[in-house]
Amino acid sequence: MEIKLPRKALVTGAAGFLGSHLCRRLLDDGYEVTALDNLFTGTKKNIETLLDNRRFSFVLHDVTQPFWGQFDEIYNLACPASPVHYQHNPVETMKASVLGMMNMLDLALKTKARILHTSTSEVYGDPLVHPQVETYWGNVNTIGIRSCYDEGKRCAETFAADYRREYGVDVRMVRIFNTYGPNMHPKDGRVISNFIMQALQNEDITLFGDGMQTRSFQYCDDLIEAMRRFMELPREKIDAFCSRHGLGAPVVNTGNPGEYTIKQLAEETLLQIPESKSRLVFRPIPADDPKRRKPDITLARKLLDWEPKIPLRDGLSKTIAYFRELQQGA
Amino acid sequence: MEIKLPRKALVTGAAGFLGSHLCRRLLDDGYEVTALDNLFTGTKKNIETLLDNRRFSFVLHDVTQPFWGQFDEIYNLACPASPVHYQHNPVETMKASVLGMMNMLDLALKTKARILHTSTSEVYGDPLVHPQVETYWGNVNTIGIRSCYDEGKRCAETFAADYRREYGVDVRMVRIFNTYGPNMHPKDGRVISNFIMQALQNEDITLFGDGMQTRSFQYCDDLIEAMRRFMELPREKIDAFCSRHGLGAPVVNTGNPGEYTIKQLAEETLLQIPESKSRLVFRPIPADDPKRRKPDITLARKLLDWEPKIPLRDGLSKTIAYFRELQQGA
Repeated sequence: MEIKLPRKALVTGAAGFLGSHLCRRLLDDGYEVTALDNLFTGTKKNIETLLDNRRFSFVLHDVTQPFWGQFDEIYNLACPASPVHYQHNPVETMKASVLGMMNMLDLALKTKARILHTSTSEVYGDPLVHPQVETYWGNVNTIGIRSCYDEGKRCAETFAADYRREYGVDVRMVRIFNTYGPNMHPKDGRVISNFIMQALQNEDITLFGDGMQTRSFQYCDDLIEAMRRFMELPREKIDAFCSRHGLGAPVVNTGNPGEYTIKQLAEETLLQIPESKSRLVFRPIPADDPKRRKPDITLARKLLDWEPKIPLRDGLSKTIAYFRELQQGA
Repeated sequence: MEIKLPRKALVTGAAGFLGSHLCRRLLDDGYEVTALDNLFTGTKKNIETLLDNRRFSFVLHDVTQPFWGQFDEIYNLACPASPVHYQHNPVETMKASVLGMMNMLDLALKTKARILHTSTSEVYGDPLVHPQVETYWGNVNTIGIRSCYDEGKRCAETFAADYRREYGVDVRMVRIFNTYGPNMHPKDGRVISNFIMQALQNEDITLFGDGMQTRSFQYCDDLIEAMRRFMELPREKIDAFCSRHGLGAPVVNTGNPGEYTIKQLAEETLLQIPESKSRLVFRPIPADDPKRRKPDITLARKLLDWEPKIPLRDGLSKTIAYFRELQQGA
C-alpha cells in the first residue's frame, strides 16, 4: 500500500488579504500549509477559521529574516501593498520586498522548492504603453514617495530572474493588477475598500481628479486560481514558453482587463448599498498617482488557460457583505 | 592651542578604478581614509602607493556584510560595474548594490555621517529622453541579463531616498556616466579599455553594430572633483536645491556631455597608438545594449559649480600611458 503524504506549502504574508485566501485554497487542495506573517498589515482574524485545521500552522515571522524548512512549494506574498501602509514605513517596505525575496529564493535554492512570487502592476509605474504587456519595461520614479513599493518589487523580480538564470531556481511570477474581495484591510486606503467603507458609514465618497481615470478590478478568487494553475505547470513547459515569448523570466500579468472609471465604481458601490446617504466629492490627484492601468492577459490565457470569471457586480456584492459583517462585529 | 584632527572618510570599493582615485584625492585633501574592498574586481595594485600613508587603512571587507566605525563621510562605490564582471555573478552584484547600500545607510544613520552614493547612468536604461535629465524615470528591463546592475542601482537609489526622507540621513547621489582613466580594469570589457588593449596588442578593434551609437566619456579626475564638491556643500543648500528642482532626493548627473561615436573613439585611440597594426571589425549588438547615452549636466553645473575640464584627447593619452606601463610590467 502506498502512503501519500500531503504536499507542503509555505505562504508568506499569509494573514494578509490575498495570503488568507491562498491558504484556504491550498488546504482545500489537500496541502499542508505553513503560514508566515509578521502581522504588520495582516491580521490573525483573516485566518482564524483555518487555525483548527491540523494541516495548517501559523508562524509569526518577519521575512526580512531568513526562514528554514522543507517545502515543495513557496508562495511569496509578504509586503505591505497599499500606499497608506507602505508609506508609513518605506524602508521596512523595501526590506520586506527585497530581503524577503532574497530569503525565500535562498530557501528555494537550498531545498529545491518551486517558488511563486507575487509581483505587481506597479512595476509598470505610470505606463506609457496601454494595455500593459509583460515585455513593457515600465515608467517608474526611483526616488519618489511611491518608489519604496514599486522599486522594491522591481528589485525582487530581478533577484528572481537571476536566481533562476544563475542557480536554476524554479521561480514563477505573477504581476497582480488591482484585486479586491473579502479580507481586504478596511483602512488600506485602496479605492474599493475606501468606497465601501465610506458608503456604509454615510461619509462622502472621495474621488481624486475628475474620477475618469480607469482601473481594472480583479476578484481575489480569480487571482488565486491563476496562481495555483501556474504552480501546477511542469517546469519544461514554462521554460519553453519563456523562450517562445522572449521573456527573461516566467512572469504573467494577472488582472481583469475590464475597465471601469473610478466614478463608475463609486456609482456601482452606491447602487449596492441603497441605504447609504453618501455623496461623491472630488479632490486633487496625489503625487505620482498612476493615471491608467489595464492588463494585457494574453500570456496568462495561453500559458494557464485562465481568465477572470467573476464580474465586478458579483465580486463587489461579496466584498460589501464582508465589510457589512465587519462593521456589525465592531 | 586648538588641535585639529583630520576628518575621517570611509570609501567602499576603494581598490577599484574610481575608488583608488578617490582615496588618493581624500588623502591629498588631508583626510584619514579607511578603504574597504572585497578585491573581487578591485586590486591592491591600484592602491599600493597609498599603503605607506599613515592616514590610510585598507580593510578587506565585503559590503554585503555590515561594517561599523565612526566616520564623518562615507563614499559608497562598491559594486562590480562592468557587464563582463556583473554578469559573471548577477546575484552577488545585486547584493553588493542593495545590501551594500543598506549597510552603509545604516552606518550613516547610526553615526550621523554624511554619505555619497555612486549611482549610474544605467538607471536610465535604454533612455527614451535625450539627453538624460535627473527627473527622467528611465526605461529599464527588470528581468534581462543587464538587470542585476541596473535594478540593483535603482533599488539603492530608492533606499537612499527613503533613508533620507524617513530617517533624515544626509545622503547625496551622483549618477555617473561613462568614465575612464588609469586603474581601469584591462579586462572589464568596457569600450575604452577594450580599444586600448586591442590596439596595444595589435588585435582587431571590435565595434558593435555600425559603431555609430554615441557615448559620453568622462575622465576620472573630473568625476572625483564633482564628488568632493558635492560632499563639501552644506545640507541646507542641498535641501533647498531639491525643493526648487522637484527632486525627490539629492541626485545629479556627472558625466561629460561631449558626444563621440564609438567609431570616433576607435579612430582617436589608433591615432594615439601609431605603431598599432589593429583594424576595425564590426559585430552584432548584444541584448539590452543601450543605444545612446548623454548626460544633461545642468543641475551639476548649478549645484556644484562644476563641469568636466579634461578633453578626451588628454584623458585618453593618460589612460594609454597607464595601459602601456601595465603591459610592460606584465
